[in-house]
Amino acid sequence: MIRALGFDADDTLWHNENIFEQAHERYRALLARFHPAAEVDRALFATEMRNLRLYGYGAKGFTLSSIETAIELTQGAISPAEIRSIIALGQEMLAHPVELFPGVAELLPALARDYRLIIITKGDLHHQERKIAQSGLADHFSTIEILSEKDGAAYARILRRHGVAPAEFAMVGNSLKSDILPVLALGGAGVYVPYQFTWQHERVAETPHVHPRFRQIESLAALLGALADLGGTG
Amino acid sequence: MIRALGFDADDTLWHNENIFEQAHERYRALLARFHPAAEVDRALFATEMRNLRLYGYGAKGFTLSSIETAIELTQGAISPAEIRSIIALGQEMLAHPVELFPGVAELLPALARDYRLIIITKGDLHHQERKIAQSGLADHFSTIEILSEKDGAAYARILRRHGVAPAEFAMVGNSLKSDILPVLALGGAGVYVPYQFTWQHERVAETPHVHPRFRQIESLAALLGALADLGGTG
Repeated sequence: MIRALGFDADDTLWHNENIFEQAHERYRALLARFHPAAEVDRALFATEMRNLRLYGYGAKGFTLSSIETAIELTQGAISPAEIRSIIALGQEMLAHPVELFPGVAELLPALARDYRLIIITKGDLHHQERKIAQSGLADHFSTIEILSEKDGAAYARILRRHGVAPAEFAMVGNSLKSDILPVLALGGAGVYVPYQFTWQHERVAETPHVHPRFRQIESLAALLGALADLGGTG
Repeated sequence: MIRALGFDADDTLWHNENIFEQAHERYRALLARFHPAAEVDRALFATEMRNLRLYGYGAKGFTLSSIETAIELTQGAISPAEIRSIIALGQEMLAHPVELFPGVAELLPALARDYRLIIITKGDLHHQERKIAQSGLADHFSTIEILSEKDGAAYARILRRHGVAPAEFAMVGNSLKSDILPVLALGGAGVYVPYQFTWQHERVAETPHVHPRFRQIESLAALLGALADLGGTG
């Protein structure tokens, strides 16, 4: 019987990766006179991975890695004014309004009647808190957990702290790597709701299609059905 | 009777502001051919305050504001190579080893026998977690709370969540604004341990010298005495 639901936030409750995608597009355009888009993407991702240990996830680290990559790729030929425009791009990402997915504002209060709801998100603490506040959804959640990494140890710690057995828990999210696989490994259930874009770092080779505690749905509109199927109260 | 102790981390358990101070020094040197140090400091602080809502606290936001200020102050005359050196400066801050204050490694296990210990720190989630892990102190704390802002509402939420009455709680830290005043206002106790540097944003006009639940000490070596005086178990 599922009693508690974890929700990822970015790209599960509201749009996020499309904002990064638009930023990438403008970044490629800025560097287009120096390098083709594919090379810009490759170099930026390499810088992001090299800096991940120091920066963690989020738009500030993305902005810093973008500036570093631009200077490196252009061998210093990029202008300070163009670097200033990368900073502005990052600030626009941070200031971007939260765009809820359709139906989320109605779904959550309905779910909150039957389940304990927990936001489990990763990234920049300050930015995540601001987005959660702006979303208007915070009151539907009994707990908000903002993590630097979503792995098995982190989920186990959260479930233990809140006295939720893994068998009573389902995680809903758009990342197999961060939302679904670690929870299935603990004995919980996972409802995978893919988003149109997936950041390269979050991609995994295969989907656990045949796992009995795994469901994949097209959108959150199908969540109640998936939960009933998994043994929820809904 | 005090039963639970909150500890600030940066500049309370280990050095931090000296790392920012060194970064400021190198930043001033980089811009010295354009502007005197006082003007550089003034402009950087203004940028940091303007960006605080978007960036929050921490070294990544500091780095981004430093780059923005450098471009602005030099009207674009700073070179991309010099901007790269500001990025490197920020990365050195993030990679800087944790330097514990003298006696902390011995004091905490002794305190942990008599008090429930909680780290209550603010700033960048990823960086704070890395520093706490590197410090080797995590095991002495029952809970680690990393916040985006340390105000009365945040302290009230933490105490409620952990079932600690304000009267049973003392907060130990180097910032009157973030560690002491909000806790005194809730009815808790505050032990103020000033650090040699205080970031301008954390400065407040006056010290609550005559408050019965307030103590100021020179170093953590005097903490046991201050707690006994405040009605601790020590």
